[in-house]
Amino acid sequence: MRRALHRAPMSAFDYTAESGAPELRETLAAYLARSRGVVADPERILVCAGFSHAMAILARVLHARGADEIAFENPSLHIYRDIAARNGPRVVGVPVDDHGITVSSLDSPAVVVTPAHQYPLGVTLAPGRRAELTRWAEETGAVVIEDDYDGEFRFDHQQVGALQALAPERVVYVGTTSKTLAPSLRLGWMVLPRFLVESVRVEMAASGARPALLDQLAMAELIESGAYDQHIRRCRAEYRSRRDRLLAALPDSVLPQGISAGLHLVLQFPGDLPGEMEVLAACRRRAIGLEGLSGHWIGEPQREGLIIGYGAAAKHAFGGATQALREAIFEVT
Amino acid sequence: MRRALHRAPMSAFDYTAESGAPELRETLAAYLARSRGVVADPERILVCAGFSHAMAILARVLHARGADEIAFENPSLHIYRDIAARNGPRVVGVPVDDHGITVSSLDSPAVVVTPAHQYPLGVTLAPGRRAELTRWAEETGAVVIEDDYDGEFRFDHQQVGALQALAPERVVYVGTTSKTLAPSLRLGWMVLPRFLVESVRVEMAASGARPALLDQLAMAELIESGAYDQHIRRCRAEYRSRRDRLLAALPDSVLPQGISAGLHLVLQFPGDLPGEMEVLAACRRRAIGLEGLSGHWIGEPQREGLIIGYGAAAKHAFGGATQALREAIFEVT
Repeated sequence: MRRALHRAPMSAFDYTAESGAPELRETLAAYLARSRGVVADPERILVCAGFSHAMAILARVLHARGADEIAFENPSLHIYRDIAARNGPRVVGVPVDDHGITVSSLDSPAVVVTPAHQYPLGVTLAPGRRAELTRWAEETGAVVIEDDYDGEFRFDHQQVGALQALAPERVVYVGTTSKTLAPSLRLGWMVLPRFLVESVRVEMAASGARPALLDQLAMAELIESGAYDQHIRRCRAEYRSRRDRLLAALPDSVLPQGISAGLHLVLQFPGDLPGEMEVLAACRRRAIGLEGLSGHWIGEPQREGLIIGYGAAAKHAFGGATQALREAIFEVT
Repeated sequence: MRRALHRAPMSAFDYTAESGAPELRETLAAYLARSRGVVADPERILVCAGFSHAMAILARVLHARGADEIAFENPSLHIYRDIAARNGPRVVGVPVDDHGITVSSLDSPAVVVTPAHQYPLGVTLAPGRRAELTRWAEETGAVVIEDDYDGEFRFDHQQVGALQALAPERVVYVGTTSKTLAPSLRLGWMVLPRFLVESVRVEMAASGARPALLDQLAMAELIESGAYDQHIRRCRAEYRSRRDRLLAALPDSVLPQGISAGLHLVLQFPGDLPGEMEVLAACRRRAIGLEGLSGHWIGEPQREGLIIGYGAAAKHAFGGATQALREAIFEVT
């Protein structure tokens, strides 16, 4: 931030463009192409205040363009479904299987997906499904919103690039600093199909909100300097080792899912026994705050499970937390 | 920012509440009461990303509550009128005379006013009108949105407090850092009537946008430390002396208006001669970028004039700019 302030021209303190700082949009275009294979140029990038802001604006733009409905993966985060619904479109759920979202069930003008690491189930959208999804979008003219929330944190050797690369004119790519730096920064970016750029820019202006320009310049500076890549590499290694230590600590009685990418995995219990409530209660008794799968379904919960986020715990606390989790599971199984 | 980072707890980096950082809301409650006489407590304060964000959210909330129309002072800033219109209500204009907005012409469920220093005309809402406006709001149940954009920069000795103090349950007070620190910070606050707090909070969440938490903590730190008051006192003295130097440099042929408060004054030419375009062109020839009154009217321009903002120019450039303006006016008069 100090370096950004040092470089900032007078104009960086004035009223700012709704598209975001040109410096950041240019830096992001190169970074996203390099790190995620995104087909990006500054003209189709808009800076926003995180995924929630992007979701609100995209829902309003798509609704104004006639999309009365928007599909979400089922299960998915209810907060984004709520924001979409509050801004116009009706929300419908589409099942997710071991290969990701079931494209054959799609029948909406727009869909929100998490291809790199489905939230919460943790599955990766299979190559066949990626092709099927983009083909479906091209044939039906639907818009796919790609929430690349933890795309930087894949643990297997060949990275899975952004879905947007397959159909840049049908996929809106959305990335943020919420998983790489901090959610409280409220900083993100959309890479848009050309036909949506102008209407999204106008809706962004109508939202009256945009991130502080100095935060945008600091982010550009962070990427330019190489410190952002370095930070991500360091975090990826740390999260991979946390995942490995977590897996090693888990009893064989449980089935870990979605372990190939960062920040969380899901524990399923054979036959859902013991029940989610019971396991969560045992965790709470050991001061481990975890969420269950149940809360993420649209309509009736279809499967139970434990969502274990292993990124946020302080380094010194992680070993103890893992041990406590192991004990909690032993207590109830 | 460094001090805020130093103090920030772990939770300051996590997902944040849509109401804003409690530290900032508490600090603002005390600051606004002390500096502007605002009837404020943290429970009725929401932090937002500047006046534009507040305008978008309030327009949506009021529209959802049945306000199909929102009144603006005529003239006023078209950007806020556009944001209001894009979020539901129809926009109507209400004349401004030498005492401020003509309350007798008001016939809308909501109105946006700039009581401390009308923008762009620069008049101050007269004591009688303030009483009349709040009485009108209480009798009709209308909501008054007070844009206190430069309330900190009054030059006469007795400060004019916030309108909100007269009717805290009918007036939404909105303040920002755009004039005191920098517009590019995108940081502001609403002080709400109790009956609006919950619906505005929900709409704020639906907007998906909020300022970065560290910026909020830095702002709280800045106020708590006393540095913010000191900065404002320093700026007020600087702007007052700029205003005086500007007035001294102006030929007697022109009539300066709205000189009692900071950041801008308006120059009117008797009989609108020379015309605004002619004066602006003469200024442009001397590389002075000024705006005219004409662009701020709803419908047909009713009066011409020169809006002279004297806050932004670099200290070393101000003398030369004033001289150039004087020459430009002499050239055309």
